[in-house]
Amino acid sequence: MTVKVTLIPGDGIGPEVSAATQKVITASQAPLEWEVVEAGEACIAKYGTPLPEQVLETIRRNKVAIKGPITTPVGKGFRSVNVSLRQQLQLFANVRHLRNLPNVASKYQDVDIVVVRENTEDLYAGIEHKVGNHAAESIKVITREASERIGRYAFELARREGRKRVTIVHKANIMKLSDGLFLESVRNVARDFPDIECEDRIVDALCMNLVQVPEQFDVLVLPNLYGDIVSDLVAGLVGGLGVAPGANIGEMGAVFEAVHGSAPQIAGQNIANPLAMILSGVEMLKYLGFVKEAQRVEKGIYNVLTHREYITPDLGGMSGTQEMALAIVESM
Amino acid sequence: MTVKVTLIPGDGIGPEVSAATQKVITASQAPLEWEVVEAGEACIAKYGTPLPEQVLETIRRNKVAIKGPITTPVGKGFRSVNVSLRQQLQLFANVRHLRNLPNVASKYQDVDIVVVRENTEDLYAGIEHKVGNHAAESIKVITREASERIGRYAFELARREGRKRVTIVHKANIMKLSDGLFLESVRNVARDFPDIECEDRIVDALCMNLVQVPEQFDVLVLPNLYGDIVSDLVAGLVGGLGVAPGANIGEMGAVFEAVHGSAPQIAGQNIANPLAMILSGVEMLKYLGFVKEAQRVEKGIYNVLTHREYITPDLGGMSGTQEMALAIVESM
Ligand SMILES: CC(C)[C@H](C(=O)O)[C@@H](O)C(=O)O
Ligand SMILES: CC(C)[C@H](C(=O)O)[C@@H](O)C(=O)O
Repeated sequence: MTVKVTLIPGDGIGPEVSAATQKVITASQAPLEWEVVEAGEACIAKYGTPLPEQVLETIRRNKVAIKGPITTPVGKGFRSVNVSLRQQLQLFANVRHLRNLPNVASKYQDVDIVVVRENTEDLYAGIEHKVGNHAAESIKVITREASERIGRYAFELARREGRKRVTIVHKANIMKLSDGLFLESVRNVARDFPDIECEDRIVDALCMNLVQVPEQFDVLVLPNLYGDIVSDLVAGLVGGLGVAPGANIGEMGAVFEAVHGSAPQIAGQNIANPLAMILSGVEMLKYLGFVKEAQRVEKGIYNVLTHREYITPDLGGMSGTQEMALAIVESM
Repeated sequence: MTVKVTLIPGDGIGPEVSAATQKVITASQAPLEWEVVEAGEACIAKYGTPLPEQVLETIRRNKVAIKGPITTPVGKGFRSVNVSLRQQLQLFANVRHLRNLPNVASKYQDVDIVVVRENTEDLYAGIEHKVGNHAAESIKVITREASERIGRYAFELARREGRKRVTIVHKANIMKLSDGLFLESVRNVARDFPDIECEDRIVDALCMNLVQVPEQFDVLVLPNLYGDIVSDLVAGLVGGLGVAPGANIGEMGAVFEAVHGSAPQIAGQNIANPLAMILSGVEMLKYLGFVKEAQRVEKGIYNVLTHREYITPDLGGMSGTQEMALAIVESM
């Protein structure tokens, strides 16, 4: 029996890295069937929105999707497609597995961190108002329900992946009520996981520790905004968004995504690095229970990176996007 | 004519690093007179508050103060002394000069960044409420007045220090009204400084860029919370809070501070690194216009760090706090 997944190629370099990803993930022998749908810039002219209703429908039907980068046009009144997807599908957990890869330039080694970011509330709730012409307020919303839900997700992930420690990140010394509630809620959940160590860290101190001794961290769980900041910071420690997989996970489904931009200036040149999206595909395979298949792809990626013969220019090589994908397929 | 400054030794290692600082700053030949006052833990028993009114009064009178670390006891209902000082004295700019120092361990070189953080509003306004028992809201307040004020401070600093570029940091793609107002206000100010380059960066992307290529940044200007996070992150790039000077500057005065903790576990042992507070003293000298004197101290610090003979254990040496201070005095 095959599993149908939605593929959204996206804008700019999206179609190229998507083609590479489809090739590699298919070669893993996972029994997938792809339903390709369009979202992003091309949809605006056709449907008046970058995220047409039928896209949401196919994801709701297939329950699993993978997407390339989508550009949200600035100042035209559209909400971020990424944020809309997360909120409309209630994809409450934003998860990034960030680790150093062979021959990917970084000042750090042995970073292996999972960032688990709450994806539905906090300052992303979108509640803002002007106060006269010279002031504005944004409201940070924290609920026990969402905090416990993301806390439970983080601890379950830690247990499932054989990880040792979860660090709760907050600024409860200043936001005693909101971040205090987040901290308290996740701590309550932690009691159900006596096998996993639980600690907490204030967000400013965490960021200092991350740039000094990132090896000490394992799983981080954070409210939405700190999660946004810290997941990019940690991506920077392992080589940047070009090698960072992303996943948005909810009760009814999951959307995997390359979190980098659509890089229109290099689109169509077959030079974009496809790793972020391929690695997102690996996360998708694991999510679907295709563990053997995921490991095959990982082996291919490690081999190609180790030999450095078929890598894209940003990684120091001279291969094209599709050639790198092909090399991964051949060294699986 | 001498200038009177308030000295608050603070808690834990505070008295030791303060003594070292007083020694070094006095040896710079700046015509200072010190008024030493107590704040912090010791005051709670005596006055029922870690920040007695007379401390605020001496600072208001002298207009310039320097303080060691002060511990705010957790869960006893006291507000952070640091935050109270900033808000009560309207010290609207929190400024950190962060640069690599010789032989201070770091993965980075050539970092030379000034972080200019708005110090009075944002989520630090302290406006929070519970919404039932299972939710809470915190209010992020951004005003044009405070944003323009910090923007102007950043550009004036850039001009005064011969710096080339100011980067405005925000998340206006999500918080269109509040961060949008911050961005717009600082951009308005930038028009008065055609000699200084102005760019902006989204906070998550900034943090990734900072851990990858920090040398590209010069002056950063940020709202309070991002400023809190980013100033610790950048401190981490140059060796941590133990070598990071801090300054809080307002219209009516300034408070210079070591931003590290009071480290009670090593208090009284003469092993604490006094550099953060001495460097804060250097910033104080510059603020007072004693530039020659500040340069003398800087020369002493660079010499001592370069020769590595008289440095504290955390820097890889075997000297005590006071011995290091003495060595700085002798190599000025
Ligand atoms: C594009 C932007 C709205 C988004 C966010 O802030 O969540 C991005 O930074 C991310 O982390 O996926
Ligand atoms: C101690 C704490 C309240 C303070 C802050 O959050 O501002 C500290 O982190 C700082 O940066 O000086």
